[in-house]
Amino acid sequence: MRKDYIPGTNLEIYQKEKSFSFGVDAVLLSSFAGAAKRCIDFGCGNGILILRMLGLNKIDLGVGVEIQSEVAEMASESVLLNNLQDKIKIINGSLVDYKRYFERNSVDLVISNPPYIKAGGGIVNTDDNHAISRHEIHMTFKDLVEAAAFTLQDGGSFCFVHKPERLPELFDTLSEYRLEPKRIRLVQPEKNKPANMVLIEAKKGGGEFVKFLPTLNVYENGTYTEELLQEYGEIIK
Amino acid sequence: MRKDYIPGTNLEIYQKEKSFSFGVDAVLLSSFAGAAKRCIDFGCGNGILILRMLGLNKIDLGVGVEIQSEVAEMASESVLLNNLQDKIKIINGSLVDYKRYFERNSVDLVISNPPYIKAGGGIVNTDDNHAISRHEIHMTFKDLVEAAAFTLQDGGSFCFVHKPERLPELFDTLSEYRLEPKRIRLVQPEKNKPANMVLIEAKKGGGEFVKFLPTLNVYENGTYTEELLQEYGEIIK
Repeated sequence: MRKDYIPGTNLEIYQKEKSFSFGVDAVLLSSFAGAAKRCIDFGCGNGILILRMLGLNKIDLGVGVEIQSEVAEMASESVLLNNLQDKIKIINGSLVDYKRYFERNSVDLVISNPPYIKAGGGIVNTDDNHAISRHEIHMTFKDLVEAAAFTLQDGGSFCFVHKPERLPELFDTLSEYRLEPKRIRLVQPEKNKPANMVLIEAKKGGGEFVKFLPTLNVYENGTYTEELLQEYGEIIK
Repeated sequence: MRKDYIPGTNLEIYQKEKSFSFGVDAVLLSSFAGAAKRCIDFGCGNGILILRMLGLNKIDLGVGVEIQSEVAEMASESVLLNNLQDKIKIINGSLVDYKRYFERNSVDLVISNPPYIKAGGGIVNTDDNHAISRHEIHMTFKDLVEAAAFTLQDGGSFCFVHKPERLPELFDTLSEYRLEPKRIRLVQPEKNKPANMVLIEAKKGGGEFVKFLPTLNVYENGTYTEELLQEYGEIIK
């Protein structure tokens, strides 16, 4: 386990080399999401999203739900490390039990960096931490949307990151639960490479039009682009 | 009326200054669409899509349907001008009468540059040629998809250009008719400006995953980008 600074904030976070270091996706998602009073992160991992949102002063209170006890423990330790136990709560449990943990219409933001890959989309060891984070073993996208639709107030935002290739299905599931896509940003590794990530904001009971933000390129000539560093907050810091 | 070369081909086309000059959208769409034997263009305007696809040797036969008689006439004249009357047919009629003109499952490509704006989305003069091309007066997206789904063979492609803001609704309508989005390209005016155009290929009875192509930027520092000129075929020519 090691301690790292969270980009653009003065907070620190515990990480592990292999499975539980935050990636570009977590940084981009926490920058993409708008400000809110109360935020839930379903499948919070080591707590990066909630911690960074709080560190950027974008949320007042946050709750993270994480099914893997070892990882939930690590998130809790990071909360203590930053002395944020009054503002952040980590629940070691499954998001499918959302009704046990949360009231209906109780938050204005749900955020998530869910598993991208469908269960059955490859042979995986279901005991493997890394596999649980990547594959829809304990948490399908539909489970996640159901939990978001229940916990969000009308007009509340559901912000998540996913694979562009699943976009039609994601839209379909969102609309089934009256969550309407409102803001989308594609993320490409480089200018002339296809997007491998998409950031999406859907609103509960939102209208029909969606706004695309300019496509973000991560690298140019082997270094991070200026637009990426802006999202990291390194320029502002 | 004036005559212009069609980019990347040796063909010419009749155009009119105001309402019926082809735009970047038509060039990008005809470059985006794949090769096919038989192609229908619903709402073909002055025939640019069918003519360019033929000029690029991407289709063997094409039929254009255009409701405005004056515009259909202009398209027919361009067909004659290029001596393509054996390969291209222009029908002056409404796409809602598609069953009168076409057999079920009879083509492998439907292409369209439909009106982008919903009827009622602004005050329009319904007799105005320009308005008919831009607003869903005689042709809604649902009408278009219905006609495409009927005329396309299984596995056939429906390629069109539209506004990104309508993407969720477009997906919804496509899936209602078993047309699955397979390939998407966003088009931005410049690198850091939001996309104002989206190119979409849907396949009849296609699987669930969609592929995003790299986002295309039209301008950089006031001139066309290299990636745009490639689509125009000016570099190859």
